[in-house]
Amino acid sequence: MSHPLQSGPLRLGIAGLGTVGVGVVRILRKQADLLEARTGRKITISAVSARSKDKDRGVNLSGYAWEDDPVALAKRDDVDVFVELIGGDEGPAKDATEAALGAGKDVVTANKAMLAIHGQSLAEQAEAAGRHIRYEAAVAGGIPVIKVLNEALAGNEITRVMGVMNGSCNYILTRMEDAGLPYEDVFAEADGLGYLEADPALDVGGIDAAHKLAILSSIAFGSRVDFDGIDLEGIERVSIEDIRAAAGMGYKIKLLGVAQMTGRGLEQRMQPCLVPDTSPLGQLSGGTNMIVLEGDAVGQIVLRGPGAGEGPTASAVLSDICDLARGWQGPVFGQKASTLTNTASAMSQAPAAFYLRMGLLDKPGALAKVATVLGEAGISIDRMRQTAHHNDHAPVLIVTHKTTRSALDDALAAMAKTGVLASDPVALRIEDL
Amino acid sequence: MSHPLQSGPLRLGIAGLGTVGVGVVRILRKQADLLEARTGRKITISAVSARSKDKDRGVNLSGYAWEDDPVALAKRDDVDVFVELIGGDEGPAKDATEAALGAGKDVVTANKAMLAIHGQSLAEQAEAAGRHIRYEAAVAGGIPVIKVLNEALAGNEITRVMGVMNGSCNYILTRMEDAGLPYEDVFAEADGLGYLEADPALDVGGIDAAHKLAILSSIAFGSRVDFDGIDLEGIERVSIEDIRAAAGMGYKIKLLGVAQMTGRGLEQRMQPCLVPDTSPLGQLSGGTNMIVLEGDAVGQIVLRGPGAGEGPTASAVLSDICDLARGWQGPVFGQKASTLTNTASAMSQAPAAFYLRMGLLDKPGALAKVATVLGEAGISIDRMRQTAHHNDHAPVLIVTHKTTRSALDDALAAMAKTGVLASDPVALRIEDL
Repeated sequence: MSHPLQSGPLRLGIAGLGTVGVGVVRILRKQADLLEARTGRKITISAVSARSKDKDRGVNLSGYAWEDDPVALAKRDDVDVFVELIGGDEGPAKDATEAALGAGKDVVTANKAMLAIHGQSLAEQAEAAGRHIRYEAAVAGGIPVIKVLNEALAGNEITRVMGVMNGSCNYILTRMEDAGLPYEDVFAEADGLGYLEADPALDVGGIDAAHKLAILSSIAFGSRVDFDGIDLEGIERVSIEDIRAAAGMGYKIKLLGVAQMTGRGLEQRMQPCLVPDTSPLGQLSGGTNMIVLEGDAVGQIVLRGPGAGEGPTASAVLSDICDLARGWQGPVFGQKASTLTNTASAMSQAPAAFYLRMGLLDKPGALAKVATVLGEAGISIDRMRQTAHHNDHAPVLIVTHKTTRSALDDALAAMAKTGVLASDPVALRIEDL
Repeated sequence: MSHPLQSGPLRLGIAGLGTVGVGVVRILRKQADLLEARTGRKITISAVSARSKDKDRGVNLSGYAWEDDPVALAKRDDVDVFVELIGGDEGPAKDATEAALGAGKDVVTANKAMLAIHGQSLAEQAEAAGRHIRYEAAVAGGIPVIKVLNEALAGNEITRVMGVMNGSCNYILTRMEDAGLPYEDVFAEADGLGYLEADPALDVGGIDAAHKLAILSSIAFGSRVDFDGIDLEGIERVSIEDIRAAAGMGYKIKLLGVAQMTGRGLEQRMQPCLVPDTSPLGQLSGGTNMIVLEGDAVGQIVLRGPGAGEGPTASAVLSDICDLARGWQGPVFGQKASTLTNTASAMSQAPAAFYLRMGLLDKPGALAKVATVLGEAGISIDRMRQTAHHNDHAPVLIVTHKTTRSALDDALAAMAKTGVLASDPVALRIEDL
């Protein structure tokens, strides 16, 4: 499996010349000498491909062959590594990736959606062909979490992977708290600033972050990528009231991805959670990403850095390219694709404390009814606060002791039948750190 | 340069069976199947070596050959990788490492002192022999900073490397602040708890941390390891008064290692510094380590984790072993040893703000004299506080605007001649984050 032409130049074909693609070309031109010193080889670009040939991208592409079709680029004889920066889980990105592997090329990609949906079949194809797929840029931008999880923690049984993996969501939640603004206002602001994907649901719906979590889970737990198994909830329903109430009790609300192996299977959650405001995750503000990795030997490792942007993402792509230039070898998801388990993802049963916020109608015994329902479901109360009545109902905050999501759901269903709720309660998990 | 026997088992010889060595043996036994799944090979132990054969180490060593002499272990025919966990920059560790390379073995080591002092000659020997030296465990315990710097950031021109690299010092400084205790008391407490090296000067004198910084500098800046070029100051002179005064102005005092390339050469500093209390470094308390890496493309990456202990350090050793099992190849310090530059390390000239604390004698015009001296040295004052006289002298705190260390030293020399100082001023750098 050693790389062909390992002593000659490593020749790239780059498909996709958006922000990241242009960033990669820029680094390859600017740092050619440094890259050669570090990898022992010249790294060259043979050909590039993008939708429009004539667009001015601020970088000189005249020395590279142009291909209109990324599939044709992927198959070129003068390409050793196909660099896929097109994006999208289907279509040209996947077609060209498969063509590259079929033609015996290694692949470097930043495409989280493609890997989250088609990772298993692509890994099988790559391994059958004796080739590699590298994707550091697919998760958390400039943070080298793929390398750290795959290589640096190879001696660990991973116990939990956690993180804030979508900078736009973290920006929105942080900004809501700092400016005291409701979700809708900050969403509009972020959209106006160009912080959101063309389809904002990818960001605020948690889909983009869940793609990343699915990839990390596979490496961490030796399981097949299972995007559909993620318990997914976006930030659209996080209210400024919840952010304020959480802050008052020493918590921050984050769109937090968590993957852990339990007795009942692999749990993957991407949902708004409370974390202690003094924890590294609680202190993370703005668009920065953070990944927390926990292993039986190492304990806890925290990685923090820019999760997006030209430079950071291009840096991650270059990491993969340099590894391949140095002769890197390894399976796509940390162990051979054929040995990855097909874990039935369980509904979350890992016990946790929960934050509950509800409005109670102004009826005698309303609070007692809520407390009784919780008690009957076996859920004990750590803290409870009721504040003054407001518009005929009383805001109540409850922090439970540890319980399961299913016990909580039972309690919430019973609570709805008491007739004392002014509206559906908000229930958010409090993640242990 | 592909590894011999890459498809058979990778056979280890482990020298040194202290905490880390035993931790490595434990992981190799407990996780044998996982390691084989991840690397595609069995990883076995052929032989071990330590000072005393009969000591009970709580792990079954009966299946491994025993060597009294680590040099003999290093040369064994049934050893592919020599794992050096003896420690010490000279003596058996170095003799056995050289013997291993001479016999065509790869080396994995946790020995920061040996690499900081003899890294260049060992790298030259390894590369001449076509072999590798891996040393993830030598810097910051379980934090994979060697891999991240060497591989993940290979596409970056590194602009600065910074960090808290000695957990014992950070524990002492944090504990002084939390408990309001003087250095001497907390030092005695830490020593009693077994937190310090047998020679505590390695910790509190900053030597251990400086060994680590020297290694990081070499990888980051393509320069030869230059431990002697580090501007080194320990934490012995940090007083509770300074910790309190810094806290009052929004800073924490950390033993901070900083390496950066300047127009005048490579600057390496390991010294107590002030950092903003809201920064990741400022928020780091207790024995945890943190490394901040800055590159032209990636921006800033922060890595946080346990800097010592059996599990974290063994995890790092396993990272190196697994890499070699997978056929990892690369130069010792990020590029060929022969191409590393011999950078004359300059005295620190990177401009910074400084914190000054002094006692002024109760003389008319004393404060004016100090301010005049600073002004004449071209140093402007950002903030100044004088508090009430105490024992006939007045405590004064000054935060300067950015200046150079040499301008500051000139000013301090001139200040000493004014006759208004009650004692030598304390001057600490404030590091930009």
